[in-house]
Amino acid sequence: MTSPCAVGVDVGGTFVKLGLVQGHRILTQRALPTASIGSTPRKLQEGLVKAVGSLVRESRRRITGVGVGIPGWVQYPEGVVRSCANLPGWKDVPLRALLSRRLHLPVSVDNDVNVMTLAEWTAGAGRGARNLVCVTLGTGVGGGLILDGRLYRGWNGFAGEIGHIPVAEAGPRCSCGGIACLERYVGNREILQRVRDQLKQGVASVIPELVGGDLRRLTPEVIDRACELGDPLGRQTWRWVGTQIGLVLIGVVNLLNPERIVVGGGISKAGRWLFEPMRKTVRRRAVRGASRFEETRWSTWMR
Amino acid sequence: MTSPCAVGVDVGGTFVKLGLVQGHRILTQRALPTASIGSTPRKLQEGLVKAVGSLVRESRRRITGVGVGIPGWVQYPEGVVRSCANLPGWKDVPLRALLSRRLHLPVSVDNDVNVMTLAEWTAGAGRGARNLVCVTLGTGVGGGLILDGRLYRGWNGFAGEIGHIPVAEAGPRCSCGGIACLERYVGNREILQRVRDQLKQGVASVIPELVGGDLRRLTPEVIDRACELGDPLGRQTWRWVGTQIGLVLIGVVNLLNPERIVVGGGISKAGRWLFEPMRKTVRRRAVRGASRFEETRWSTWMR
Repeated sequence: MTSPCAVGVDVGGTFVKLGLVQGHRILTQRALPTASIGSTPRKLQEGLVKAVGSLVRESRRRITGVGVGIPGWVQYPEGVVRSCANLPGWKDVPLRALLSRRLHLPVSVDNDVNVMTLAEWTAGAGRGARNLVCVTLGTGVGGGLILDGRLYRGWNGFAGEIGHIPVAEAGPRCSCGGIACLERYVGNREILQRVRDQLKQGVASVIPELVGGDLRRLTPEVIDRACELGDPLGRQTWRWVGTQIGLVLIGVVNLLNPERIVVGGGISKAGRWLFEPMRKTVRRRAVRGASRFEETRWSTWMR
Repeated sequence: MTSPCAVGVDVGGTFVKLGLVQGHRILTQRALPTASIGSTPRKLQEGLVKAVGSLVRESRRRITGVGVGIPGWVQYPEGVVRSCANLPGWKDVPLRALLSRRLHLPVSVDNDVNVMTLAEWTAGAGRGARNLVCVTLGTGVGGGLILDGRLYRGWNGFAGEIGHIPVAEAGPRCSCGGIACLERYVGNREILQRVRDQLKQGVASVIPELVGGDLRRLTPEVIDRACELGDPLGRQTWRWVGTQIGLVLIGVVNLLNPERIVVGGGISKAGRWLFEPMRKTVRRRAVRGASRFEETRWSTWMR
């Protein structure tokens, strides 16, 4: 008899990723373009039922439950998707009830950064920390909090919005309704635009060559490659991004006094070019860093 | 038979305040100049024992315990005062053990903002909130957090340092080792200096008249009086201070999604001149405020 498994589902705007897991080990993974699963909210929900169902059947294992991460506002533990910027039309969708009824399995539906935070805390870079701040860097900037050994959700389930901490009094308007939110400076799109703007202003760089003269092909990975080649614009870009994130993390550290900060997501692949200025900013300026007391520990992950 | 009482002690750099309390009612209060109690750390500790002891004896009540708030870093629940900016020479003082041994009573020693937060939560402006942010405005800016129905202390007992959240990338250095901390802009001294600077620059105001031409006599209360008289400099000052505090609270709200914010302390007496711009800043720009969801509630106290 094989030991029981569970199914994890990451619903993204571009891909739906499914995994069959045993303990903390992933046995099978699958990634399906979200658009191929369903073009309307209803079809996508039906498609999710089918995709999870076929993974369950094909596994020929005893499945103890299904966990789903959604990039939006989820009412927990009810598992109702209240709204979701990347899944147009999803509004007050009782996803947990729907999946559970159709799959005849226990289902848990939560915000994707919350489930990422729980994963890093129980099995990843934040294992064992009683107070943990998780930061995801990508198109948006997300945050998850483990406080006193529990996931902290806040009053309406909205806690952890590190990407919407303002970095200045004035600045660009954000989709959240705020002004000068961190995300408006260090989201993927904004970083690429910053590089393009500087190139237009005539800053010398190897980057145009790396993209064959076509700046639409600029990605965070191209900036990383430029850094490795010693490019000042590439390095200055990550230094600036790291400093901005660090400035916000000073406030987070002084407010929450966490034991550990875990930083992950797409642009965290930039590695030391990004992390050194980020850590240095916090170490130099946070109450903890300036004191003789033990410093917040840092981890990064690139899953 | 009278019901049992407790003694509360607020140890400040200027005054030590003692109160005999029954439930949430204060029966007797006493304020002694800290310097009159003791001039050295050891004498002050001895003096505290005597002051509490005489209050206990004079009360002729059954005393269930003593609670002490200290304006510094306290190791809890051990009640060891690790350091304290306003009580020079206090370093690793086992105050709880000392008081308990000498008074033959259960004693609890904690940071003063933590005990203030617990008081506002159980009996004051934050009663009933599961997630509460307390802010104290005075010489320094302090913060206390009730998260998921418990006082949150963080990893080293340093959580809640709202006054040390930076408001800008560059700015004045702070005693905490940081740069551009909120406290360096909206601490009492900094507010008064700001007004003096503007008067020196020739800004017209009723303030010089209110202090009889002696700007050393400027206090927050004078600015309040100027506001009531319609003085533009007075009103602009609180508007600016409120906006700066509001900007930091946007980040706190977006990170912690609290149910309620309680603001108190000396300069909170400025009332609406200060609170309206503070609230407006948060309401306009925080994720919660910009959304259709229920807004964080606000309370003020002026104890």
